[in-house]
Parts: sequence; C-alpha cells; structure tokens
Amino acid sequence: MKVIKFGGSSLASSEQLKKVIQIVSDDATRRCVVVSAPGKRNPADTKVTDLLIRYADAVIAGRDYHDLAQEIIARYQEIALGFNFTPEDFAPIKRAILNLPLAKYPDNNYLMAAFKAHGEKLNAQLIARVFNLVGIAAQYLDPAEAGLIVTDVPDDAQIEPTSYINLRKWQNNAKVLIVPGFFGYNEHGNICTFSRGGSDITGAIMARGLNADLYENFTDVDAIYSVNPNIVPNPHAIGHMTFREMRELSYAGFSVFHDEALIPAIQGNIDVNVRNTNHPEAPGTIIAAQIGHNKNYPVRGIAASKHFCGLYISKYLLNKEVGFTRKVLNILYKYNVGYDHMPSGIDDITVIIPEANLTPDIEQSIMSELQTTIQPDEMHMIHDYAIVMVVGEGMRDTLGVMARSTTALAKAGIRLQMVNQGASEISIMFGVAQDKADLAVSALYGEFFKQN
Amino acid sequence: MKVIKFGGSSLASSEQLKKVIQIVSDDATRRCVVVSAPGKRNPADTKVTDLLIRYADAVIAGRDYHDLAQEIIARYQEIALGFNFTPEDFAPIKRAILNLPLAKYPDNNYLMAAFKAHGEKLNAQLIARVFNLVGIAAQYLDPAEAGLIVTDVPDDAQIEPTSYINLRKWQNNAKVLIVPGFFGYNEHGNICTFSRGGSDITGAIMARGLNADLYENFTDVDAIYSVNPNIVPNPHAIGHMTFREMRELSYAGFSVFHDEALIPAIQGNIDVNVRNTNHPEAPGTIIAAQIGHNKNYPVRGIAASKHFCGLYISKYLLNKEVGFTRKVLNILYKYNVGYDHMPSGIDDITVIIPEANLTPDIEQSIMSELQTTIQPDEMHMIHDYAIVMVVGEGMRDTLGVMARSTTALAKAGIRLQMVNQGASEISIMFGVAQDKADLAVSALYGEFFKQN
Repeated sequence: MKVIKFGGSSLASSEQLKKVIQIVSDDATRRCVVVSAPGKRNPADTKVTDLLIRYADAVIAGRDYHDLAQEIIARYQEIALGFNFTPEDFAPIKRAILNLPLAKYPDNNYLMAAFKAHGEKLNAQLIARVFNLVGIAAQYLDPAEAGLIVTDVPDDAQIEPTSYINLRKWQNNAKVLIVPGFFGYNEHGNICTFSRGGSDITGAIMARGLNADLYENFTDVDAIYSVNPNIVPNPHAIGHMTFREMRELSYAGFSVFHDEALIPAIQGNIDVNVRNTNHPEAPGTIIAAQIGHNKNYPVRGIAASKHFCGLYISKYLLNKEVGFTRKVLNILYKYNVGYDHMPSGIDDITVIIPEANLTPDIEQSIMSELQTTIQPDEMHMIHDYAIVMVVGEGMRDTLGVMARSTTALAKAGIRLQMVNQGASEISIMFGVAQDKADLAVSALYGEFFKQN
Repeated sequence: MKVIKFGGSSLASSEQLKKVIQIVSDDATRRCVVVSAPGKRNPADTKVTDLLIRYADAVIAGRDYHDLAQEIIARYQEIALGFNFTPEDFAPIKRAILNLPLAKYPDNNYLMAAFKAHGEKLNAQLIARVFNLVGIAAQYLDPAEAGLIVTDVPDDAQIEPTSYINLRKWQNNAKVLIVPGFFGYNEHGNICTFSRGGSDITGAIMARGLNADLYENFTDVDAIYSVNPNIVPNPHAIGHMTFREMRELSYAGFSVFHDEALIPAIQGNIDVNVRNTNHPEAPGTIIAAQIGHNKNYPVRGIAASKHFCGLYISKYLLNKEVGFTRKVLNILYKYNVGYDHMPSGIDDITVIIPEANLTPDIEQSIMSELQTTIQPDEMHMIHDYAIVMVVGEGMRDTLGVMARSTTALAKAGIRLQMVNQGASEISIMFGVAQDKADLAVSALYGEFFKQN
C-alpha cells in the first residue's frame, strides 16, 4: 500500500481537490491520504494557516476576530460548494471554526498550536466527506484516534516512538484513511504541532507506521531539479536520488523538503516519490536509501546557501597549542552558537556558522571573549559568505569531480574562500562571496549537466 | 652585522672548517658565529653528538666508556691537527671530554644534556682558537657568560625572554663571537638543551638578541627547493620565501629547518638566508616576513608527509547535534591526542591526527569510547593516509590554483580523500593514499613549475 500526501497548493480549491480525487481513484493501493491545510490559489492569496495565525493573534490580544473567522469559513465553504455540500453537511466545519476561541488551553502557546492545526484537521474532515460523496469509501482519522503521540512542545513537537506501534492497527483498514498533517497530541491530549515541513513529517510517520511500500508526496513541481530553476532555467530533473543526497542538498538550500521531514521514511526504509498534483502522469523523483549511478552524471545536484558566515582566526603556531580548537568551541558553546564546519590551515581556522545563529550582540561578545582568551594574531567575521555544494554519491567512484568543479569556478572568475571535502566523498563544499553564489551554481551546472 | 650559523656537516673536518674560515673572512659584518657539533664526514660516519649520547649511556649504565671517550677526542683532534695545534693547545678539549663523567649532575637527564651539549661547546672553543691562529680576532662566548637562560627542561628547554636583554651588551663586541648552539643554562646553572633543530634555534636567538641585519644559516644544500629532490630530480630552487610559507612546508615534511627554530628570527623580524658552506657563491634562499610574488609562480613549494592518519566518523544528522565535535575533541583531549585538522561533510567529520600521537592501545581506547559516547553510524581509522600540501602566499592573488592542482591530480589518477582550504588561502591540503603521495607531489610540481 501507499501513503500519499498532498501539499497546500494541491488542496487550495475545489478545482484542485478534484485532481486529488482522480489521483487517489487511479490507484487502489493508495490507502492513506495525508493532507495539508488549503494553500494559496494564486500568488496574491493567503494560506488558511496564516489566516488561523491571525485569528489566534486576535483572540489572544482580545481584538475583534469575527471577520477573520468568516474569512476562514469562506475558504472551506468554497471547496464544500464545489462538491454540492448541503448547509447541514458543512455545519460541523463552520461550528468548529467559530468554537475555537471557546475551548480551554493550558496557555497561549497551546492555543496557537490548536488554531494552526485546525487548518489540516478541518480540511481532512471536509475531504473525507467529499471522498464519500464522490464514491470513495474513506474515513477521517484524527491523530488522537490514530495514537499519534508527540513530545510536549506546542510548536516544535517530536514524534514519540510508541506512535509507530499504535499506528500498526490501521495498516489494513477497510476504508481509505484521511489524516491531517502537521500535528499530534501530547500525553495530556493537547494539540502540539511539528515545526517546519509539518505535513511532510506526518506523511513520513504514517508511511513508517503503516509500513507502506511507497510514500508519495504530491506537490506542485514535476520533480526535484538538479539545480534551482530560478538560477538555471529548465534544469535537469532528478529521476532518482538517495536520502543522503537529498539531505546534503537540502542543507545547502534545496527547498522541496525540509530534510528532517524524511527521517521517519528513512528509519522505515520507505522510498519517497515526489510528484506533481497538476501533472500526475510525470514520474517525479524517487528518493531511496540506495540507487544505482549513471557514470555520465557523477553529480546529482548543485545548491547554494547564502545564510552562513565565516569566523576566521589566525595565530602563529596555532596547531602547536593543544586544545586550541576546544577553547574556541567552548566559547561558541557558552553562547549557544552552533557551527557547521571548521576547515583549517596550519595556523588558522575558519569556523562556518549559520547566520541565524548570530545576533550582532552575540557576535560582539564572542569576538571579545575570543580576543582575550586565545589572543589571535588576526580575527574577523566574514559576513559576505555563501556555501556552494556539489552533491552526488557517484562522485565516490569518479575521479576528477573536484578538478572539474574548481576549473569551472576558476573559468567563471570565482575566488574560493574555502574548500572542504572529507573522507565521505559524497559532497564538496565551497565558500564563495555571496554575490558570486548564483554564478558559481550556474558554472557548476554547466560543467556537470550541460556537456553530457 | 650578521649572525652566521654552521651545521654539523660544515664542521665535520678540518677540511670543512677551512671553508668556514674563508666564509667568515670574506665578510667583515659576520660578527657572531654559531656552531654545531662536528657532523658526518661521509655517509657511514657517526655524528659527535651521537658518540656523546653513547658515552653518556655507558656512564649511566656503569659500562666501560674509555674507547668512546677516545673516539670523541680523536674527532676533535683531527680538526685540531689540521691547524697545527700543539698538544698544549689541545689539552683543554681532551681534559674536558675525559672529565665529563666526574662532574655532579642533578640527575641522569641533566647528565645526558651536559654530555650532548659538549659536542657544540668544545667545538666552539676549538674553533675560537683556530680563528685566532689563522688571524681572525675571535672569542668563545659561553651561553652562561652570554646570559642565555632557558627553562628547566633538560632535553626540551625554551628560551627565557630575559636572555634577549642579556645578549644586548654583546652587540658591538670587538672580537668575532663564537657561540655553541643547542643549549643554554637554567637558573641553577645546569645545562639544558633545546629539542630538535637546536643549533638553528641558538642562531635565531643570537640574531634576535644582537639585533642582526641578517641571520645566515649555512648548511650543505645550495637552496631550499620547491619540492623534495628525492622525488623530483633537480627541482626549482626557491630564491625568496616568507616565514609562513616555510612553516607550512616544514609542517608537511620539508626538512631543511624545524619550523620552530625560526621563531626568534620571526619575532625579531630578521631575515634568514639559507646557504651552502660548500658552495658559498650561491645566493641561497632568503626567508623573510614579506616578499614580492612572481605572478607566474603562485606556488612556492609542494610537500608531502606520510605521518598522518584520518579518523572518519559519520552519523546521520550529525550536524544537528550541538556539541558533537566538542564531544569528539574532549575524548581525544582526555587521551592527550592532538589532532591537526577536521574537515567535515554534513553528516561526517574526518579528524587528521599525526601518526606519532597514537599508539595501538590509545587508538583502541579512543575508538571504543567514541563508540559508546557518540554512537556513530560508521567509524574507522584510515592509516594509509598522506597529506600533500601546495603552499604559496601568491595563491591568494591568483585564481585557479585549486583548479590546476586538482586537475593535475586527477590526470595522475589520484583520488582525493580530503581537501581542506580555509580563508587564509596560503595553502591547500589534500589527503591521499600513502602510496600515491610521491606521485601527487610530482604531478603538482609538473603543473606549477615545469610549464612556466
């Protein structure tokens, strides 16, 4: 059987929902459908989740929230009317939206979580009813009934492993299961949401819990591309890739998935198929634990992220000081600043830090503490920093990927501020100036994809 | 004025000493001569320092040491006879060698230090007498008289900063100073030796203390070469290089200097000139704080060291674990194992460790503690590891050195296990299999030196 997940844009309107019905009807093994909240119908539209956040904010602030509630109701109503719901059919959805402010919540964080989660919850209920109306035997499965238990963090919950045992009993359910993404319940029965990529996480959890043969993730692109289409027009679509490749590319800025969303699928060794709701005949991209390599394409993808900075520290005879790096890391740790990489010369290190981990104040404190503790000869923070990554498991079996990469970058006139490749040989990382990052991606794409 | 230092091979025989006399006579600004102990006269010969170590070992073990003492005396006598010493002239040297076992030492470590130091001490005394015999007004300057005070570590002393103040008064000495290398005195008046490169250190200390214009270091090669002549025949001689370049190349296996020997010269900002006693007309190699770059030669030198291993650790979602690297480093620190570099991927790190820092027992303990503490998905020690370095301050201003390097290595069929270049951009480090290290050096030399 397959678990199939639809994103917000696939569920934004009754028009879109009809495509979803067709997709589920087309394959009898699609037995569990995980749904997001209705997304944008056009670029100027607002996602239902964002409307719910405003609704919650108004309730918390004691402002009038009547218009907001009505706006949310209208979004669901548009879908319901597309399937000829009677007012009685639609009444439970409407009531749930209006009743949201009346429930008791332990605090405003739980209130916010519950409001947001209703985007998915009500959509799943509505879709279950639609499915039955069009002749697909389906049932709404609430995470509470499913036994989807999460840790007690209202806006960043983690799945509890017992959930997978609870989910087993739904494996051979007679009706198609319609499951809302994005949330679970803590042990006290309060709604807690996942963080980013929340519905993708629920899909992967259901796939693992039901021991699915495939986790189909329907979105609005035909495939994952080897490079960002905003940088290189009409890039090569990736047919197959490994979880590790996905993770490395996701780290460096690929936005289809938040890489952590795939963890339950990886743990259950379940292949993931990224597909397009608007173009369901396209095969999409398969992400699996292991796949074969095409010798002509040692590189799977190229990505760039501009959200890093580099802390450069140089001190003569640095590598003679036992524990030098530990001193640096201890200071970063003290200020709770995670760092990602630490390429080094004989007498210098460059600590690569995600920009989000630093505020100007923290940066100032760290620099001044480093100054007094380790007395460097030279130290500065490089803010104008981007990381460009070339990723592919096939690189391991292919000589010269580094040579081709660096030659392409040199021809494009790009200076390398950092190069980092460890023994895993599945990715190469370059540090370049931020305004050169897109150029670097184009140059690397040209080298590895256009010539073949 | 210049401080001029001669190594053991320049002082191994009366024949060699005549060259030294000529060199000192040729330039009236050569006012301070630092000397090593007599070295090897031919490849099968034994250095006087090694004879002295055997002598000390015999004394400590209570074995008969008469023949050893005579052998040492004979080495000095050969030199003395070359300059027609009378028996009376030579008597103090002979007596000092015979009296070595009779002195009181705090313990056997100090005994060993004093025996070893006499290789230089007696040679300096003998050379001072020779200089005067041939008409150069010279005086022996003992480190005690010079005020060359060192820390109280018999075999690995460090210079005390007060020494530089003490040395000032010898700056304008009327006679040429003949100073023994390799040792100083602790505050109790006991001889303590420097570690490796000991006479080079004394030369650099004298150059700084006397505020010399130049520190001439005479050895048995015409210059420092851009690559090991045992790997590439007749390589390019380096005319000028910076201290940093010397240090990076020395780290990766260049053997002319132990890089720490240059520290006092660097601190005093005194240029160092490496020259050949057997070919004094050759200009040698100048090492200075800053020099110009030749755009055609962005690389100064290429070196390889086979004395490293790589600890590879991979764990899924490694970079999400705050403090992961600290945990690894803390375990290495606990076992007192220094590491040099730590290139990383998203989910793996490779810790580069000098092979000398590990014994099989320590390796085993570290691996098992890492296994239980961090539970890696994969972990192994790569012993078949060599580091190849491409060094040059000119690389900073030249695009494409990385591209040329990696292309040359790929053409030579060499797989890159690691690539590490930080923000300093003065060196690139490659990890390759040990049996490919020389091939890698040849390939890189061909790229950067043969084509121009």
